Amino acid sequence: MFTGLSAFPLTPLDEDGIHKAAFTRLVTRLATADVDAIAALGSTGSYAYLTSEERAKVARITVQAAQGKPVIVGIGALRTRDVLQHAHDAQTAGADGLLLAPVSYQRLTDEEVFGLFEDVTRAISIPLAVYDNPTTTGFTFSDELHTAIANLPHVGAIKLPGGERIATLRKLVPAHVRLGVSGDWFAAEALANGADVWFSVLGGLFPEAARAVMDGADLEPLWDLFRRHGSVRVVATAAALRGLTSEPNLPRPLRAAPADEVAPVLEQLKL
Amino acid sequence: MFTGLSAFPLTPLDEDGIHKAAFTRLVTRLATADVDAIAALGSTGSYAYLTSEERAKVARITVQAAQGKPVIVGIGALRTRDVLQHAHDAQTAGADGLLLAPVSYQRLTDEEVFGLFEDVTRAISIPLAVYDNPTTTGFTFSDELHTAIANLPHVGAIKLPGGERIATLRKLVPAHVRLGVSGDWFAAEALANGADVWFSVLGGLFPEAARAVMDGADLEPLWDLFRRHGSVRVVATAAALRGLTSEPNLPRPLRAAPADEVAPVLEQLKL
Repeated sequence: MFTGLSAFPLTPLDEDGIHKAAFTRLVTRLATADVDAIAALGSTGSYAYLTSEERAKVARITVQAAQGKPVIVGIGALRTRDVLQHAHDAQTAGADGLLLAPVSYQRLTDEEVFGLFEDVTRAISIPLAVYDNPTTTGFTFSDELHTAIANLPHVGAIKLPGGERIATLRKLVPAHVRLGVSGDWFAAEALANGADVWFSVLGGLFPEAARAVMDGADLEPLWDLFRRHGSVRVVATAAALRGLTSEPNLPRPLRAAPADEVAPVLEQLKL
Repeated sequence: MFTGLSAFPLTPLDEDGIHKAAFTRLVTRLATADVDAIAALGSTGSYAYLTSEERAKVARITVQAAQGKPVIVGIGALRTRDVLQHAHDAQTAGADGLLLAPVSYQRLTDEEVFGLFEDVTRAISIPLAVYDNPTTTGFTFSDELHTAIANLPHVGAIKLPGGERIATLRKLVPAHVRLGVSGDWFAAEALANGADVWFSVLGGLFPEAARAVMDGADLEPLWDLFRRHGSVRVVATAAALRGLTSEPNLPRPLRAAPADEVAPVLEQLKL
């Protein structure tokens, strides 16, 4: 499950709630595409902005629409209490894997993060990917902490922000723990240098284009937008431009990237 | 309301919920102490870790226990939807002022943060303090953004992380907007240099000691603990050591500071 192309769909929503039909449409596109797993409620899926009830609903819709493809569900939250609830709900919905970032408000210590993963891995029965994303969480994993967590039961992968630590961590973590990359602009190089999986924002909306990147295509104009606006804001705009969702489709205060910047890039890259 | 000493109590809680009796005890201490306002659900009050229902309950308890002292309530959340709900609930509970930080998961743009404050100030009828805390929010306010937000209706104060920008902002924001300092170890110098208010963690647990700091007392051994462990972890330990709460009293994954480091400092400083 934690190999190849993991596709992270947007969760289209507005202030009144989740757009079920649009989300089902996005997941169905992935179910019939050449992706190895569908990862709902990643950062692109706005997991951090949803209630536990909304997240359980998204997990159920994803499993139903995935047509048997492996489903990974993000369970991160500020409180251990809520993470455990999300893990339970995702497993009950039929998820195949979980994804957990140490989301913070008060910046977390290494002991607190290890304790979180210890508490969660004790309670789950399916594989978990450790989500390392300092930009959104404010937390930086040391090599030592990654190694300690990778040795906990059920840990099956680490999702890294870029590929530069893969060679180092490969020597430190157990052989069964897959090492993956996010930050779409890092993916081609990281895969060439031994990453097992690309946790892909692009793949969640344009899976064929993500496969093309894995085969050598260069989407630098899109990566430039991703870096400047944040990938979630760009795919939100792209999804609306391509008629896959209505707009707005992000949780306020977030705002989608300007359509007049995104549209020409989609045209140029034939997305 | 946004002058002098604003005291931020801990919200004692564990995985089963808020400890109402202990919280009421902490607020009652402040109601009968020499503080100018009681600020519930600040960072020290773990606002970011609580549900909307829990936060409404804390707001009601605070107003009841405050015995007429001004009550400020923190309303920050990742989603504008939830911030508006918290503002409504705090006003309904009888709060006198609100406190809002631009909490983030996806890092926010200036336009998004301005939009948040615009949406919220349009919906409220009591004064709001802008909570500038880059460490917990991941967001850094420019002088221009502070000035723009300070000109919105109902904005009554800015809570700054340290005192070094007060002289600059004083020239930029409207005269009725108070400028306050947090980070307790910065307070004495900032007040001497013209801060209007100290938003105080220490004052939420030991209000007499906070007054002593305003009169020149030096609590450096405590500030050292605050800087190393985070002030919320230290006051959590101190509250339990002084028998004011049970333990654990913080939301997991957070853990209180080690008692064997905090106890000697409390003894030394006669807290």
